Amino acid sequence: MMIRDQAFQIIRRVFKRHGAVEIDTPVFELKDTLTGKYGEDSKLIYDLADQGGEMLALRYDLTVPFARFIALNSVGNIKRFHIGKVYRRDQPVLSKGRYREFYQCDFDIAGNYGRMVPDSECVAVATEILASLPIGDFAIKLNHRRLLDAILDICGVESDKFRTICSAVDKLDKEPWEAVKAEMIDKGLKGDVADKIGKFVLQKGEPWHMYKSLMDSKAFGNHKAANEAMEDLRIMFEYLEAMEKLKYVSFDLSLARGLDYYTGVIYEAVCLSGKTQVGSIGGGGRYDNLVSMFQEAGKQTPCVGVSVGIERVFTLMEARLREQQGGSIKQPNVTVLVASVGDNMMSDRMRVTQRLWNANISAEFSQQENPKLKYELANALDRGIPFMVIVGEDEIKIASCKVKDLKARTEELVTLDNLSTYLLEKGVVPVGCEFAAEEEKNRKALRLS
Amino acid sequence: MMIRDQAFQIIRRVFKRHGAVEIDTPVFELKDTLTGKYGEDSKLIYDLADQGGEMLALRYDLTVPFARFIALNSVGNIKRFHIGKVYRRDQPVLSKGRYREFYQCDFDIAGNYGRMVPDSECVAVATEILASLPIGDFAIKLNHRRLLDAILDICGVESDKFRTICSAVDKLDKEPWEAVKAEMIDKGLKGDVADKIGKFVLQKGEPWHMYKSLMDSKAFGNHKAANEAMEDLRIMFEYLEAMEKLKYVSFDLSLARGLDYYTGVIYEAVCLSGKTQVGSIGGGGRYDNLVSMFQEAGKQTPCVGVSVGIERVFTLMEARLREQQGGSIKQPNVTVLVASVGDNMMSDRMRVTQRLWNANISAEFSQQENPKLKYELANALDRGIPFMVIVGEDEIKIASCKVKDLKARTEELVTLDNLSTYLLEKGVVPVGCEFAAEEEKNRKALRLS
Repeated sequence: MMIRDQAFQIIRRVFKRHGAVEIDTPVFELKDTLTGKYGEDSKLIYDLADQGGEMLALRYDLTVPFARFIALNSVGNIKRFHIGKVYRRDQPVLSKGRYREFYQCDFDIAGNYGRMVPDSECVAVATEILASLPIGDFAIKLNHRRLLDAILDICGVESDKFRTICSAVDKLDKEPWEAVKAEMIDKGLKGDVADKIGKFVLQKGEPWHMYKSLMDSKAFGNHKAANEAMEDLRIMFEYLEAMEKLKYVSFDLSLARGLDYYTGVIYEAVCLSGKTQVGSIGGGGRYDNLVSMFQEAGKQTPCVGVSVGIERVFTLMEARLREQQGGSIKQPNVTVLVASVGDNMMSDRMRVTQRLWNANISAEFSQQENPKLKYELANALDRGIPFMVIVGEDEIKIASCKVKDLKARTEELVTLDNLSTYLLEKGVVPVGCEFAAEEEKNRKALRLS
Repeated sequence: MMIRDQAFQIIRRVFKRHGAVEIDTPVFELKDTLTGKYGEDSKLIYDLADQGGEMLALRYDLTVPFARFIALNSVGNIKRFHIGKVYRRDQPVLSKGRYREFYQCDFDIAGNYGRMVPDSECVAVATEILASLPIGDFAIKLNHRRLLDAILDICGVESDKFRTICSAVDKLDKEPWEAVKAEMIDKGLKGDVADKIGKFVLQKGEPWHMYKSLMDSKAFGNHKAANEAMEDLRIMFEYLEAMEKLKYVSFDLSLARGLDYYTGVIYEAVCLSGKTQVGSIGGGGRYDNLVSMFQEAGKQTPCVGVSVGIERVFTLMEARLREQQGGSIKQPNVTVLVASVGDNMMSDRMRVTQRLWNANISAEFSQQENPKLKYELANALDRGIPFMVIVGEDEIKIASCKVKDLKARTEELVTLDNLSTYLLEKGVVPVGCEFAAEEEKNRKALRLS
């Protein structure tokens, strides 16, 4: 929970920096709203028992409720984020990060804006989030759904085969070309058509380099849709460069993404732990037609969004923390343990602890009436609590206390009036400020690398 | 959502200061777990459709899932908090703050500790939270369930009538004594017995004053349970005084609280808006027997907890904000709008905005390709955005921009390198630091009052 909280705070901060508003939709949806949106995964939707005529179900993701919200409230332009739980009636597999109840974390821009402007901001937001989280290196793969369709068209694939061939192309991040080619042939393509596709989709790399090489070689000839998509990408690269994000991006012609509802640029974030890719940690794209499924005919609200794979992020953060701390991720729940010498000191311990609470320092007093100091010390060491404050009758008389720095193994006499200041100077971080400090550290590390 | 987020941050900060760990239990519970815990309100539980043999329901509160968690995991001592949604199959009444899905915010201490120590900390935590939130004055009513029972015993009420007479006593905060007395007589008490009870339960006031007056007058004679409860309270007052919280407390012999499971001290926070009480904004008490309902016979895990009435708190915060801002609670979603003069400046606007994002300042660029400056200015004024940054070709040449302070109606030329610093010095608060500033202000105001 500590890791989650840290991640959520960092993520919220990025969203707010970009002026996004938080919208919380109910976990219930009418069953009809969810039906027919998720294809064969619909069987994973949790239905509620009939509660007197209303057929309700628990939300399966955050995108469909958002689309319904936009349509229902006739929202024009909006930039929103939503961190919430979704529910899937699946057999949980904890090791694979598959749960019945898990968090999703979405950012979407709906409405009419300058060409590629919201698309670029979605990628910028996702990049800022991932760069702020302590998860190591990552990259953003970027492609355009209409460019992929145009490639298939240019190679002579019939349009009714686009989706199924796309799903073969999408496997190139996991399987070698030969396997993907075999699947294409299985799906009815001729070998030379598959090879033509291969020449395109095996290309990926630095965006401007890729863009120039494709344009210089006139790879798409006069294909109108392809050239429009390339112009979209040119604009987007320019914007991402202005927002200092292009260095994270790889233009990857093999990226297809599973969901049917994408209509423009698509992107996926992958973690590069050392040299190994550990898989997708986010993704999204433009989905211009989803909202109109909930609107009267003829209306359209263009949308683009990105979802951060927050459960995967938790796993990565936990793994890194475990690594740093040598196997254990135990963190003390407080910074200071207030103990005492002598009997009947409970009120005194409380008084001193309250001073620390007033200074927003996390602290705890020994909860037993007359605890033995040596047990309290062992307790603090065992839990990794960095500071111990000790009060006894002698110290109380001179309005002071002893402060033990358990890491530096030092002890000093400090007046009670100076206690908080003393601890803050010793590096104690007030509650709620840890993440600001942590985030700054991550951002600096990234700027330096 | 902005108000909620602010409240949650403040609340989380207090919990963490006290070293509480956050525990998130699933929103589902087995139906059997919830059955038989809520009396006649059980009809408000949301059941899920049968998902292949498992009968699940949505949680109705956070206390029962916590008790199950403690029992299931054989947890010994724990101090936890939980902010989460609960579900009630009720007809929603928005004006009364009754929803089907709403937040609860609980703090509980389970396990064996020094006498009255965790009880005192629960009240201290609730008090710190309410004092940190911008909701105005409040008080904590405090009583002891066993003291109330003892009073009824002393007055000659039979023990099988304790609960029903208690529920009459509990109405004294809303109804005059005459009405409550009438209810007691209705329930089978004699008039003089009711009057005897009245002499006790109409007493409330400053804790030490009440304590001394009750002890000096030997009000409870040699009644063992009463004197034990009074000793509990004496210890608790001493501890609350050490933690600087006694000044908020009223010892109120009429406080009974509805739920059956309380076994010791009980408390309730009430908001005192001016001179009017607007009702309960939190409450809790000791419930030593709830966990054992999920444990093997003979085991017992004492628990004490407090729940903050967070939906009521949202309402109060919103009302105060509305008052301060003269009816509207519109707050700008960003601090800075980055606009431009001349065409094709999108990338330039993005570059400048990115500088602000890097400094953790919330900012937005005009999203249309070639917006007119006068519309952008009108837009910023309409939304109450305090600062506008304007870039044009001339400014870009000298790596500068114009900064308009829309409240002070000033404009200055600032170099891009100095932009963030300039704005921070002008009082712009970085994202995530607003609440720390706000909280400090509230705490100061309270210390001064």
